[in-house]
Amino acid sequence: MQITSEALERAIEELAKLPGTGRKSAQRIAIHLLKQSDERVLTLADTLIKLKESVKRCGVCGTITDTDPCVICSNPKRDNGVVCVVEEFQDVYIIEKTNEFRGRYHVLSGVISPLENIGPDDIRIKQLLERIGGEDEHINEVILALNPDAEGEATSYYINKLLLNYDVNVTRIAYGIPMGTELEFIDEATLSRAFASRTSF
Amino acid sequence: MQITSEALERAIEELAKLPGTGRKSAQRIAIHLLKQSDERVLTLADTLIKLKESVKRCGVCGTITDTDPCVICSNPKRDNGVVCVVEEFQDVYIIEKTNEFRGRYHVLSGVISPLENIGPDDIRIKQLLERIGGEDEHINEVILALNPDAEGEATSYYINKLLLNYDVNVTRIAYGIPMGTELEFIDEATLSRAFASRTSF
Repeated sequence: MQITSEALERAIEELAKLPGTGRKSAQRIAIHLLKQSDERVLTLADTLIKLKESVKRCGVCGTITDTDPCVICSNPKRDNGVVCVVEEFQDVYIIEKTNEFRGRYHVLSGVISPLENIGPDDIRIKQLLERIGGEDEHINEVILALNPDAEGEATSYYINKLLLNYDVNVTRIAYGIPMGTELEFIDEATLSRAFASRTSF
Repeated sequence: MQITSEALERAIEELAKLPGTGRKSAQRIAIHLLKQSDERVLTLADTLIKLKESVKRCGVCGTITDTDPCVICSNPKRDNGVVCVVEEFQDVYIIEKTNEFRGRYHVLSGVISPLENIGPDDIRIKQLLERIGGEDEHINEVILALNPDAEGEATSYYINKLLLNYDVNVTRIAYGIPMGTELEFIDEATLSRAFASRTSF
């Protein structure tokens, strides 16, 4: 086999390293880019470089941001009495899309996981306690919004226990039947949780 | 909704324009890149820029190449008496992978398609005739390897008709039952073709 373009080959190799992109999709993408204008491809390359250059972590909440503090932490219209605790910065993105929550966030950057050797000191729990105990913010409610799996549950319990020493209300988002589905398709664990967490109608 | 990082947002937008990449996959790729080293992302960006800078068309066969003529056309070990005619440069790549063909290529860069207003003059048929009639190469066989659809068939017939005026043997690759499948799963058109093109055993 003779490769007529090393440049194409290298682009395919690099693209194939991206998640969800096999060799075939990488080839399709590279060929697509070959057919695009120089400007389009330069724009793409440039946004990827900028992505690494300008994105950092917010010193307050830990989400990714171009400015420190982030636009959420520095927005005076956001309620600084309520902090929503999430596992990863992607969760901030997902919750923001609902336009439902008007408080601020705290990104743990992980969950406690003895199996993966991640303890309480490896995630941003200390920073959460500093925010709650500090003078800058007047946090009166902490909403736990971790994933409902073993690690998320354990981390939620751990944080809740720590927060008993603080004058703060700890809540968690509701876990139950998702909207728009039918009971038939719901697993037992979710259904049990939905019964246990039933509310008056 | 508040976007904490415009740089991330722009990267997702650009990545979502790639073929086979929706908004969700673009988001996954961008987040993946954020977690990679600066070097990895710069390498990716750089290969994309190089892709546009260094890739051109071979002046002889029309495939994409970093050098003109391409490594296949300039390889003295390749049989310059046989030319395989394909629709697109990707086909060169696909055929090279078989390590079966040792001649050279001619990329048409399209097929005759009245519906899309593409006539014989819009694809590289004239260049093919020049190569066959010219003094540089001594082409004695033209293998047609176009796709077996309506446009590919029509283009093959058209080229074959033109080549009647030249002292050259025109063949086409065999169309029939693909290896490793069962007759049960083969469509009628392919099966009919396989019967019509049967060879002695």
